Amino acid sequence: MTGLPNVPLVLHHVAVVVADLDAAVAHYAALGFGTGERFAIAEQAVEVVTFRAGLGYVEVICPTDPDGPIARFLAKRGEGMHHVAYRVDDLADTLGRLAAAGVRLIDREPRSGAYGWRIAFVHPESCAGVLTELVEVPAGDAEAATL
Amino acid sequence: MTGLPNVPLVLHHVAVVVADLDAAVAHYAALGFGTGERFAIAEQAVEVVTFRAGLGYVEVICPTDPDGPIARFLAKRGEGMHHVAYRVDDLADTLGRLAAAGVRLIDREPRSGAYGWRIAFVHPESCAGVLTELVEVPAGDAEAATL
Repeated sequence: MTGLPNVPLVLHHVAVVVADLDAAVAHYAALGFGTGERFAIAEQAVEVVTFRAGLGYVEVICPTDPDGPIARFLAKRGEGMHHVAYRVDDLADTLGRLAAAGVRLIDREPRSGAYGWRIAFVHPESCAGVLTELVEVPAGDAEAATL
Repeated sequence: MTGLPNVPLVLHHVAVVVADLDAAVAHYAALGFGTGERFAIAEQAVEVVTFRAGLGYVEVICPTDPDGPIARFLAKRGEGMHHVAYRVDDLADTLGRLAAAGVRLIDREPRSGAYGWRIAFVHPESCAGVLTELVEVPAGDAEAATL
């Protein structure tokens, strides 16, 4: 396609933490989102519903274990935004450049996320208070083919 | 273009509130964003820098008046996410449908935003704790032409 600006970071998804997943899904359905795709991520002790939003996504995240990190986030901050994610072309290279530039990284190496995405988090301290995720989408992904 | 899913809400921008606009711009520049576009919105008592992020945007918002609404938000919540915005095709129609569905709206009618956008806010109570903006982009907008 034409018209996509030549910038290295593409707004990819927003993630919301909630206490009641069914209530949140009902709210997002009322806004006009589809039914979403629901799955559990056992090692993160969460259940997730993803909604497509154009070329981006909304992730609604609900803790399944009161001792997990998302449950602690929810207890401290309440329901609301958890993180914002941007797509980059080469995550390992990006992380190397950010580290060299003094950006405070939570993950210095890419790790596995949902849908085969490679992900890494940047500390809110380096992003004006916003927990920020970087995502590399596999080359064969249908989404990548549209960009 | 092909490949854009047929959903009515398209992830459009995220907005971040900061206390120090120059420091925030430096952080976002270090992440790989461009220099951004800086402007003041006098009636909202803010200065804003927008960064393009693919088809979306990041808005960094800094209060210019300690008695304004953004300054109060910052005093209460600290730096971090302010709102998430989704593009819709027909904002007036969307607001009518949402109101009929019992969604709690802050703005029941479209109002003017930056760049000629028509905007309206939905209450966080109806969006799982996230202040949510809906945006209608004018038909002649360069961005709209790419979608």
